Amino acid sequence: MPTIKTPTLLAFGAHPDDIEFGCGGVVAAETGAGRSVHLVVCSRGESATHGTPARRTREARRAAKLLGATIEFVNLGGDAHFEITVARTIALARVIRRLRPGIVLAPSLVENQHPDHARLGRMVRDAARLARYGGVKELRSLRPHASGPLFFYAVTPEAEPTDLARVVIDISAPEIMRTWTAAMTAHASQAATRDYVELQLTRARLAGLRCGVGHAIPLFASDPPLLDSLQSLGRTARKF
Amino acid sequence: MPTIKTPTLLAFGAHPDDIEFGCGGVVAAETGAGRSVHLVVCSRGESATHGTPARRTREARRAAKLLGATIEFVNLGGDAHFEITVARTIALARVIRRLRPGIVLAPSLVENQHPDHARLGRMVRDAARLARYGGVKELRSLRPHASGPLFFYAVTPEAEPTDLARVVIDISAPEIMRTWTAAMTAHASQAATRDYVELQLTRARLAGLRCGVGHAIPLFASDPPLLDSLQSLGRTARKF
Amino acid sequence: MPTIKTPTLLAFGAHPDDIEFGCGGVVAAETGAGRSVHLVVCSRGESATHGTPARRTREARRAAKLLGATIEFVNLGGDAHFEITVARTIALARVIRRLRPGIVLAPSLVENQHPDHARLGRMVRDAARLARYGGVKELRSLRPHASGPLFFYAVTPEAEPTDLARVVIDISAPEIMRTWTAAMTAHASQAATRDYVELQLTRARLAGLRCGVGHAIPLFASDPPLLDSLQSLGRTARKF
Amino acid sequence: MPTIKTPTLLAFGAHPDDIEFGCGGVVAAETGAGRSVHLVVCSRGESATHGTPARRTREARRAAKLLGATIEFVNLGGDAHFEITVARTIALARVIRRLRPGIVLAPSLVENQHPDHARLGRMVRDAARLARYGGVKELRSLRPHASGPLFFYAVTPEAEPTDLARVVIDISAPEIMRTWTAAMTAHASQAATRDYVELQLTRARLAGLRCGVGHAIPLFASDPPLLDSLQSLGRTARKF
Amino acid sequence: MPTIKTPTLLAFGAHPDDIEFGCGGVVAAETGAGRSVHLVVCSRGESATHGTPARRTREARRAAKLLGATIEFVNLGGDAHFEITVARTIALARVIRRLRPGIVLAPSLVENQHPDHARLGRMVRDAARLARYGGVKELRSLRPHASGPLFFYAVTPEAEPTDLARVVIDISAPEIMRTWTAAMTAHASQAATRDYVELQLTRARLAGLRCGVGHAIPLFASDPPLLDSLQSLGRTARKF
Amino acid sequence: MPTIKTPTLLAFGAHPDDIEFGCGGVVAAETGAGRSVHLVVCSRGESATHGTPARRTREARRAAKLLGATIEFVNLGGDAHFEITVARTIALARVIRRLRPGIVLAPSLVENQHPDHARLGRMVRDAARLARYGGVKELRSLRPHASGPLFFYAVTPEAEPTDLARVVIDISAPEIMRTWTAAMTAHASQAATRDYVELQLTRARLAGLRCGVGHAIPLFASDPPLLDSLQSLGRTARKF
Repeated sequence: MPTIKTPTLLAFGAHPDDIEFGCGGVVAAETGAGRSVHLVVCSRGESATHGTPARRTREARRAAKLLGATIEFVNLGGDAHFEITVARTIALARVIRRLRPGIVLAPSLVENQHPDHARLGRMVRDAARLARYGGVKELRSLRPHASGPLFFYAVTPEAEPTDLARVVIDISAPEIMRTWTAAMTAHASQAATRDYVELQLTRARLAGLRCGVGHAIPLFASDPPLLDSLQSLGRTARKF
Repeated sequence: MPTIKTPTLLAFGAHPDDIEFGCGGVVAAETGAGRSVHLVVCSRGESATHGTPARRTREARRAAKLLGATIEFVNLGGDAHFEITVARTIALARVIRRLRPGIVLAPSLVENQHPDHARLGRMVRDAARLARYGGVKELRSLRPHASGPLFFYAVTPEAEPTDLARVVIDISAPEIMRTWTAAMTAHASQAATRDYVELQLTRARLAGLRCGVGHAIPLFASDPPLLDSLQSLGRTARKF
Repeated sequence: MPTIKTPTLLAFGAHPDDIEFGCGGVVAAETGAGRSVHLVVCSRGESATHGTPARRTREARRAAKLLGATIEFVNLGGDAHFEITVARTIALARVIRRLRPGIVLAPSLVENQHPDHARLGRMVRDAARLARYGGVKELRSLRPHASGPLFFYAVTPEAEPTDLARVVIDISAPEIMRTWTAAMTAHASQAATRDYVELQLTRARLAGLRCGVGHAIPLFASDPPLLDSLQSLGRTARKF
Repeated sequence: MPTIKTPTLLAFGAHPDDIEFGCGGVVAAETGAGRSVHLVVCSRGESATHGTPARRTREARRAAKLLGATIEFVNLGGDAHFEITVARTIALARVIRRLRPGIVLAPSLVENQHPDHARLGRMVRDAARLARYGGVKELRSLRPHASGPLFFYAVTPEAEPTDLARVVIDISAPEIMRTWTAAMTAHASQAATRDYVELQLTRARLAGLRCGVGHAIPLFASDPPLLDSLQSLGRTARKF
Repeated sequence: MPTIKTPTLLAFGAHPDDIEFGCGGVVAAETGAGRSVHLVVCSRGESATHGTPARRTREARRAAKLLGATIEFVNLGGDAHFEITVARTIALARVIRRLRPGIVLAPSLVENQHPDHARLGRMVRDAARLARYGGVKELRSLRPHASGPLFFYAVTPEAEPTDLARVVIDISAPEIMRTWTAAMTAHASQAATRDYVELQLTRARLAGLRCGVGHAIPLFASDPPLLDSLQSLGRTARKF
Repeated sequence: MPTIKTPTLLAFGAHPDDIEFGCGGVVAAETGAGRSVHLVVCSRGESATHGTPARRTREARRAAKLLGATIEFVNLGGDAHFEITVARTIALARVIRRLRPGIVLAPSLVENQHPDHARLGRMVRDAARLARYGGVKELRSLRPHASGPLFFYAVTPEAEPTDLARVVIDISAPEIMRTWTAAMTAHASQAATRDYVELQLTRARLAGLRCGVGHAIPLFASDPPLLDSLQSLGRTARKF
């Protein structure tokens, strides 16, 4: 288990490239601003059409390094084999208690996508809750922890939920875009065959155009944000 | 027309007490933090069961003073007589160009409430858009203005929309609660007969309990917020 | 297995205090009107931060007594360990066939709450269906039974569904409120640490204010009610 | 203006046959149970492909008589010419104050149907509210009145809302079905050319089959019902 | 395993009669137009109130013959015992790789029906996805296959989703109606006791009346259709 | 009034460039396939920040020519001055009766965009209905006409409805893309200042990537399509 400091942001991904493709620009923006980000990848991409598990692991480690984030792998049954069980949810809760994160990112709950994505999203959501309960006996060796807000990211436009509060993160800064693009490109085994990198850049450009900035990435709040003042929401994602 | 400085926050209300009852705590929080707030009240409550227009105007002025906000009245046809017309929408756009606000607050668009509320909300939303268009001839004497984000407030729980991003404002500080309660109570003609003040305080207490603070008020974003970092959303409105 | 008469109302709860906190006022109203209510509690609260299973069981028995209801416990895997399986659903269907209830209450299906709640709700819904099918071999020792309507209750406001018909039960009578409050307070291990009792009373007061009565509790119909006349719906939950 | 006694049920229709086709079975069930029902028809069908206004008026009067209901006509601008205005809404509020009904029925708010339907539905909803406000000067000659619950009916399946609580009225009794069918058939100018009568009977049979009775008609509650006990919802509209 | 040619249409059913009752008219229309259809039935109806597994299997074979379709049975755990597992999903993906279908039909995902229906629908949806992934080791013996569009059918009106694109298939031709009715009637063990055949014919007549044809069946697209021209959607399902 | 032949496709736009930006690629695909398309533009862009009405009219005529479509202008009160009235709806119904179109395109009904868009969309929807009614006296000089299906287009991503069936039109052919781009660029007064052309091309590229083609445009069906066979929906807009 790597020794890492308590991350400001903890991102979970089902497959080695999901975090980079779904919200890598947000990770780059946070690390670029000096905050610590840790990635937890829950399979080695064993069922994908391209790339061996070993290669995919290397690609993910290199992408994390490019993003300035730390990374670890957990096993939830293997790519395309995720099932929602209490045991696996508790395993994720253990990760949360160990790392004691602030903000948590997980894949969206929309079902009509790779089945692992929504299942991981639901288990992370429940794990963040179990991590708070004092009496769960499998977790007793670790102190309860209440994470900060949980946000979902979407690996494809189809996975964007329409029933949760959408917030848009401005990632227009050239160094953020450079870092994010490099991290996606590091997944060479995947990027070669499907138009994934172009899909994400096009999507981020469209999100940016919609609110008058260069590029942007939408995230989806699991619960309503609690604010001391509306001033912290001082810009709005609507140009047209 | 009063001479007022450009407000950080501009709140529109259909009737003399709507702003106080629907989002007075948010106004108190903003003025308490030193920001300027201006209230635009669009009727004198002429059709209410209790209170003359003159009395209601006095109550509103006093409530605004208690809130530390400036106030003005515009006429949209009279209480219970609002109709959505281009002429009235342009009149509201003229108010926006004249005041050049940052954040704008308006009553929610949910229809099953006093009909004036949703109609004003829709006209304010459209007026904020027309205020930006350079060629609207009735508005040419005033420079186009792009406001900051538009948020809706709900005068009753029934008016809370379920299809917009909900954000919750923490108004637990004792001085905010005192100011807000005083402002609601200033509408003595209304507060006496229906349980309006208790309704709002109970609602704010419930919203507070839900996220582990004393009292809170929900607002609803017309468009997704655009952020530079998730860190500005560092707390989440979920305790249970 | 206790010998109880066929209950008019059968309520399922995931944890020892869920029924009391989520719909205890409705139970008190029914028993107060002379109808029989039976509670089925599906864990002993083993994973909660406070209270031992033994203490929680005692609290639940005492609360049931205060409510004038009978109670029994079934085991669905333990607190925080519910999983949706056919075997457990059939176990619940067996309870339904044994008790042959009229109306059934279960926790709401909204997911973003304690995971046991929605899982129990879904299993009860499916169990009520399996209880009707003549050929399920594990159930053959008990005669098929078609329950009356199924309603969901919400343990917190977050769990209130927006996609089901909402009905509001008037629990304003002082003896109902007294009984309900006593039943909640009987869960002393839980009530001490979190603002649960105040949460529920505030919520019921708000629901009451919304429709012009003292206190009220919302329930959510799994299927549309079938009526002989609209006259049985003679009041409406809207004051403002 | 006819002198009628205070109706238990007041139904508004945009065109001479809308009430009969959309909820005539419910009217027949209520009058059959001895309750008074009054119909307010808001046009003479002037824009329909078939039938003169005079003929349509005669047909509506005869259908009302068959249903055992009283009827009157008000003018909202003519068939296909309804517009939502405050003046017309107040005219409807005046009808409500004059008649002082219990339950009110109006056409559904779903927009993609004859435009008059949804417009009338929205104006009736708002009129029921204005009828309660003491200060509306155009209404001062009549005492304020708070109606009972408002339900919407759908003239076609397309107009059934999915966002309101659905209740289903059992109209299986042979005398109700006979009366309803006769009332629909009385609109001979309409029934001849389009399959309206078969549409409604088929729809009612399907609604009946769904809940295990002969025929049924769905209605949609504008606000959640407020009940003293769940026992008044003792059957549920789900057979399969 | 029967040797069948690659079907144009592949329909999955949870119980021996589900396909016939839910979309048998669509199957009849396709086979009547000369296209090959294959049915995959995933239980023998072991838990139904009426009919032995052997009888139900015979009825299903006969119904398939009447429809002009081929049929096979797979075992997903038995009637009323479906559970969503990766192993079963992969078993269904294997069926898809073996048969290499164009269009796929599966039961709707709406939950409040026989639990097997929605579970099969979700597993078929996921299986169609897994069938495309090159690296799923349990599937390596069969070449990956990307099916054509996936549509859901509803066995009862309650199962019709409101969140997916609805398309309506015209089955008015007398020979289609005759074939479909015969196929439903072939399930004599089921048709005798509940009004299933009348339910489906009434439903299809209502769907037909709504769009001005004799009879019709709605289907629900899992993903938006991709068209070269709007001309392929040249009629619209709206008469009233 | 220009003499034009009955168009296969009739598209309505609120402003001179709306059709081109919102669905110009679809128009190009239809005219490229030899079908006749007619554009009805309902203002001259009088309120826009850039471009005189005369210039905008010229640009629109030139764009229509590039698209291979005919064009005419009608006056609905002027840019930013649309109001929903019966008189204007009937004026649009008269256009429909005169032109007797097959498929009709109109701007989406989503409200939070330029207010003219949704108002025109609602009036076109209602006009298509009034055009069918035989008795509307203002329309008696023209024979009733039942148009083919009505589809909505979205001028911006924000205007895409989530409650209507989405269909995606493949416009990847190079000549379609060239024609569409030229038509957008013909609106030089608008294209210069805001990133409108890039917005639309990015949006179409993203829609294309999502379903594995070059570029695509989504449309939204006002009513469910009625089909003789699922084979006409043989591709599906889902790649990932």
